[in-house]
Amino acid sequence: MRELAMAPGWQASQWFNTEQPLSLAQLRGKVVLLHAFQMLCPGCVSHGVPQAERVHRQYATEGVAVVGLHTVFEHHGAMTPVALEAFLHEYRVTHPVGVDMAVAGDPIPATMRRYGMQGTPTLILIDPAGRLRLQEFGRIDDLHLGVLIGRLLMVDRVLLETSQPTDHSGDRSDGCEEQGCAVR
Amino acid sequence: MRELAMAPGWQASQWFNTEQPLSLAQLRGKVVLLHAFQMLCPGCVSHGVPQAERVHRQYATEGVAVVGLHTVFEHHGAMTPVALEAFLHEYRVTHPVGVDMAVAGDPIPATMRRYGMQGTPTLILIDPAGRLRLQEFGRIDDLHLGVLIGRLLMVDRVLLETSQPTDHSGDRSDGCEEQGCAVR
Amino acid sequence: MRELAMAPGWQASQWFNTEQPLSLAQLRGKVVLLHAFQMLCPGCVSHGVPQAERVHRQYATEGVAVVGLHTVFEHHGAMTPVALEAFLHEYRVTHPVGVDMAVAGDPIPATMRRYGMQGTPTLILIDPAGRLRLQEFGRIDDLHLGVLIGRLLMVDRVLLETSQPTDHSGDRSDGCEEQGCAVR
Amino acid sequence: MRELAMAPGWQASQWFNTEQPLSLAQLRGKVVLLHAFQMLCPGCVSHGVPQAERVHRQYATEGVAVVGLHTVFEHHGAMTPVALEAFLHEYRVTHPVGVDMAVAGDPIPATMRRYGMQGTPTLILIDPAGRLRLQEFGRIDDLHLGVLIGRLLMVDRVLLETSQPTDHSGDRSDGCEEQGCAVR
Repeated sequence: MRELAMAPGWQASQWFNTEQPLSLAQLRGKVVLLHAFQMLCPGCVSHGVPQAERVHRQYATEGVAVVGLHTVFEHHGAMTPVALEAFLHEYRVTHPVGVDMAVAGDPIPATMRRYGMQGTPTLILIDPAGRLRLQEFGRIDDLHLGVLIGRLLMVDRVLLETSQPTDHSGDRSDGCEEQGCAVR
Repeated sequence: MRELAMAPGWQASQWFNTEQPLSLAQLRGKVVLLHAFQMLCPGCVSHGVPQAERVHRQYATEGVAVVGLHTVFEHHGAMTPVALEAFLHEYRVTHPVGVDMAVAGDPIPATMRRYGMQGTPTLILIDPAGRLRLQEFGRIDDLHLGVLIGRLLMVDRVLLETSQPTDHSGDRSDGCEEQGCAVR
Repeated sequence: MRELAMAPGWQASQWFNTEQPLSLAQLRGKVVLLHAFQMLCPGCVSHGVPQAERVHRQYATEGVAVVGLHTVFEHHGAMTPVALEAFLHEYRVTHPVGVDMAVAGDPIPATMRRYGMQGTPTLILIDPAGRLRLQEFGRIDDLHLGVLIGRLLMVDRVLLETSQPTDHSGDRSDGCEEQGCAVR
Repeated sequence: MRELAMAPGWQASQWFNTEQPLSLAQLRGKVVLLHAFQMLCPGCVSHGVPQAERVHRQYATEGVAVVGLHTVFEHHGAMTPVALEAFLHEYRVTHPVGVDMAVAGDPIPATMRRYGMQGTPTLILIDPAGRLRLQEFGRIDDLHLGVLIGRLLMVDRVLLETSQPTDHSGDRSDGCEEQGCAVR
């Protein structure tokens, strides 16, 4: 019988839109939508971030915890925490956002590396029991995301054995394309 | 303890995109998305019909049955079955569509009257046990629709007692507005 | 020295949104935007008709005359004048629209044949001196259309010898594609 | 008889997408579209910058010179030239962009002050004779912009006495709204 892996925690050096740091452990019992983005990634700005914000505004009180993670893996001098703060302010982002922990000597930050993300935007869904249900690089349409969230909201009531994490290791691309920014 | 009402059946005088007439009874076990539209209702053409078609193309094989219902309550001389057939062809609609049964002396057709629909587009969700879960006049966004469908896809595995039919009897409007066409 | 052809007149069997029939001759001195459409052509409904209406609402008082022409060349039983009237009402079209004159034994109506249009939507620009400046099948973006109109609005003040009618005879396609409906 | 004012020159401390600094004087004979933006202004990112880029790609070879100006008047620590360079790269901006000259003790940079701009985005049109024809804060739709450009492209052939600079001094707002970011 197949097993679903537990989602690893995240490491953030700084938080916005939350009074205290958030940990995955304390969100047990909720569906967690973790979206990794960069403030200068066009696909994140036009699609990923507004989509995450929509989910937050509509479902935060219905059991879905939306967490943004600023996973800077390029243009480090441009996408500083100061710049991120201005970005979050100007784009009216109200959901909690953490800054993925930088790692000395590695352009890719800690959580991004731990999850093996291919680039930004990456959307991750974690069920109320803490299991990784989806990890998707690029755009996901609202209908598909909604169906996934709707199913996961029922998971604490039922034993669910579907929706394994997606493996997109075969469809890599380099740099920022329309769908997002890939690790080079 | 509250009870969910069973959804009433529909009455169609003609069908497109299906070899034989569809009945609600034969769709037991599936989530049914019934969308009522008129081919000259701008909100139906730009939003409701394409949304229903998206659900059909993505979820027909995963337990969701999409059924369109042409509920003509105005401009009867313009929105004939011949015109509907051309419309479905030109707009590449592939899901089954029935023509709501005309009633002598009543501008409103039979199923529209039975469900007490306020206008078009109207979206109805019926759970796998045949119970009416949602009846909504106007636009529903994809995220919200997805969450509802995702939840209902789990209903046959769990006893679900949420999501009562919505009552919008207070927010009527007349004629075609941006959101749709209301019964006058 | 090359010469620009005079635009031929149109023939309409019926008019909407105008108290009396319009002729090209009486519009001399204005930039004329003639757009040919069918009410069941998706590219016309989503792009061509709203674009023409935008031009009408913004520039009717500044020297641009917008004229719609319902050039039915397929589904004749569906796109009747009765259906067109309902369409114009529901889509809030306020610019004048004529019904292109049917020709016995020919599925293509008179004006469409005379101009050699390839399908719908077709956009035609005629300068204040009555000369044909543009005939384009398919979508034209607003920026490009605006520049053309802006130039033509200056024509009565200057001798202009650019912008010959476009010849797209090489890029035909059959049936309704995303861009429009072609004559088969 | 009324006179059109000459457009003042701009002052830039740095340039991108051009081998050498651009001056207004050297663009005499062309229609100049100057658009002032900030890389963290949502209305600039979603509307103003892509619109300027569209004009550049379609009309650079037909007599229109598009010049971007990064007029930072807020979040100075976030919108540095290093950040701007990454922004231009990721958003595939190919038209020339100058950095508006900072002024000691003033949050508003030199050119923005000289033109009396209200915020970002601001679009400015200068005719081939160097006269200021339009200065507009907020969104301008493509159709309207196209007509203005089309008219100005004819100016060197005709004496044009229309289109005075617009004065919007009455409709100020503070901070970033949907249409843009206003000087506080």
